[in-house]
Amino acid sequence: MILGFNLLHCIFKIARGALIPALAMLAVTAPQARAQATGDLGLVVERATGSLLVVDQSERAALGRIEGLGDLSHASLVYSPDERFAYVFGRDGGLTKVDILAREIVGRVMQAGNSIGGAISDDGRYVAVSNYEPGGVRVFDADTLDMVADIPTGSKTIGLVDIPGTRFVFSLWDTGETWIADLSGQTPEITRIPGIGTNPYDALVTADGRTYIAGLFGDDHLTALDLWQDTPTPRAILPGYAAGREGLPVYKMPHLEGWALAGQEFVLPAVGQHEVLWVDARSLDETGRTPTHGQPVFAMARPDGRHVWVNFAHPLNDTIQVIDTLTKQVIRQFSPGPGVLHMEFTPRGHEVWVSVRDAGKVIIYDTETFEPLAEIAADSPSGIFFTARAHRMGL
Amino acid sequence: MILGFNLLHCIFKIARGALIPALAMLAVTAPQARAQATGDLGLVVERATGSLLVVDQSERAALGRIEGLGDLSHASLVYSPDERFAYVFGRDGGLTKVDILAREIVGRVMQAGNSIGGAISDDGRYVAVSNYEPGGVRVFDADTLDMVADIPTGSKTIGLVDIPGTRFVFSLWDTGETWIADLSGQTPEITRIPGIGTNPYDALVTADGRTYIAGLFGDDHLTALDLWQDTPTPRAILPGYAAGREGLPVYKMPHLEGWALAGQEFVLPAVGQHEVLWVDARSLDETGRTPTHGQPVFAMARPDGRHVWVNFAHPLNDTIQVIDTLTKQVIRQFSPGPGVLHMEFTPRGHEVWVSVRDAGKVIIYDTETFEPLAEIAADSPSGIFFTARAHRMGL
Repeated sequence: MILGFNLLHCIFKIARGALIPALAMLAVTAPQARAQATGDLGLVVERATGSLLVVDQSERAALGRIEGLGDLSHASLVYSPDERFAYVFGRDGGLTKVDILAREIVGRVMQAGNSIGGAISDDGRYVAVSNYEPGGVRVFDADTLDMVADIPTGSKTIGLVDIPGTRFVFSLWDTGETWIADLSGQTPEITRIPGIGTNPYDALVTADGRTYIAGLFGDDHLTALDLWQDTPTPRAILPGYAAGREGLPVYKMPHLEGWALAGQEFVLPAVGQHEVLWVDARSLDETGRTPTHGQPVFAMARPDGRHVWVNFAHPLNDTIQVIDTLTKQVIRQFSPGPGVLHMEFTPRGHEVWVSVRDAGKVIIYDTETFEPLAEIAADSPSGIFFTARAHRMGL
Repeated sequence: MILGFNLLHCIFKIARGALIPALAMLAVTAPQARAQATGDLGLVVERATGSLLVVDQSERAALGRIEGLGDLSHASLVYSPDERFAYVFGRDGGLTKVDILAREIVGRVMQAGNSIGGAISDDGRYVAVSNYEPGGVRVFDADTLDMVADIPTGSKTIGLVDIPGTRFVFSLWDTGETWIADLSGQTPEITRIPGIGTNPYDALVTADGRTYIAGLFGDDHLTALDLWQDTPTPRAILPGYAAGREGLPVYKMPHLEGWALAGQEFVLPAVGQHEVLWVDARSLDETGRTPTHGQPVFAMARPDGRHVWVNFAHPLNDTIQVIDTLTKQVIRQFSPGPGVLHMEFTPRGHEVWVSVRDAGKVIIYDTETFEPLAEIAADSPSGIFFTARAHRMGL
């Protein structure tokens, strides 16, 4: 409505022949007209159609759609520090830069044959992409998408995260190494840490950027690195956590990025088991297990850590369970619908957005009352990413 | 430049008489023209002139100034969830709402005679203000600034913070109580917790909203509350931390909001001493002391917790010291200039902005190299507040 007002004013002035005053007036008033703060926006990945839905947390509404992003199965994205641009990592090796204010693609490169995710440096200058095919990590200028560094590894790379000091950390599936790439200087400086374990398949870094933890496909433990050490040395944690129990078929690999701090513990979706594991955040020793409805995919702590929301692998992926951090008991279970793929909390945790792929919608819940507040139509929604991620490390 | 382009296009079309197409085209392209993302903006309080400087972190520049905010000594502010509006708490009891996109005041109420700070609820609906005169807490609708709740306490109130569940916590100087006000329902529900100690003068809540800690003017300890308990009970921590030592004159009361998590410990500016205290984040026991250049005012952990930056009370307030978290040793000392009042880190910690009041400027430092990167002229700058605060609890 304000926009319409300004334009009518503009045209009215022009009709009177006063071209220059109209120009000046429009330059001043146009920004108010469609000005849009970006702190409460977000993007929902629509995997079947290769599009992104631009959403507004405060309005609980979709604002528009950005199309033409290619194969968005397993897509993830990161945001520029100003929360205006998103860098989308497609499974097909495409790196796409979108402008969420203009709601359009502003850059796109096919940087590899098969990529698995990426990260943005703490200063917002570099976007790094982790590749399966041909392997390695490539680093791009965040403004132009020009490639600024190519880091071949001779291996599929996984678990790419940013840490302070314009550095990235990632692991090598084939050789069981973790590499730290320092891009603060003219050329990347690489630190190689061998002995991580057999076939790291995913990794995470704690919110302070200090502890890097890799999940292993070929070993019955995880491996932690203290990145504050001058030479980080691998340390096995949760040894034998599946020992003596027959593994269930792994329908979907749990996502370690869902491992979040809940009170004084981390919560971890167990591989091949119907349970989540609790790990002391300081000692990294196991402190408990909570049986769950199915094989957990994401175990997401609400930002205050009091509750943990868990979704599950196929065929039990219509359900969510909520676990209380103090008692480690399931306090709530409900079924949003078929294909619950992802959950994203508002930054201060008062609401959670849940993508229900096969129902074609995102459902928004109050996290105190568990009541549904709104639904937004979306085309096979998967990942939900709010712009507040721009301000956090290691995502 | 893009703006100029669109306008010329508009005028060209209008000159040909095609008014309606021009209107449609402008509606589409105008948002790009002066669209402004808000994720990397901030406000610098200019205390002498009652104004705010709007700054851009990425550009390391001032974008404009908002004037007419009254008495801004000891002013603080909070942001709306979309990072568009700031609520400024003036010492004179004024609550002012400013639009950082339009760079103008959009609302202002004189809500008390002497106020001391405020907070915004986790859902962004309510702004609460803590008052010295006449005491109590008043709560306002964040959209309209209409008062929605008046909570008289019969005391000066301090240490007002937001916690999850549309709740605020604050303490009473005169009676040594902490109150929890729950605004999730129709009327505020108040929980009163007596026995906090003599004359609480400031308080903080941990980043997860769980632990509330009050500093006491009349007791030689601090008091902690676990807000996850059904009935939080006061617990004395750091008992006798100044015992047996002659207190130095307190030129400036340390700010507890500067108490931040550094690794596994909190860092606390000691009252009346030339040192900071280290406190185990879990047990809340003291774990060390670091002698400092003067009486610390703010001890701010870099977002990754690896370093702590400390500024000092008059007359030693021209200096900053940086302490390494692992060794607890001062690793850097330098003098930005006269009147170092505040420090604000970029959200992921790669830079820090320092207000140097009596030099009339804000200096930006690289936090890895400690090199100054830029300066911005400002009129008696004090508090610096980046929009990323919108996404954090308890500020």
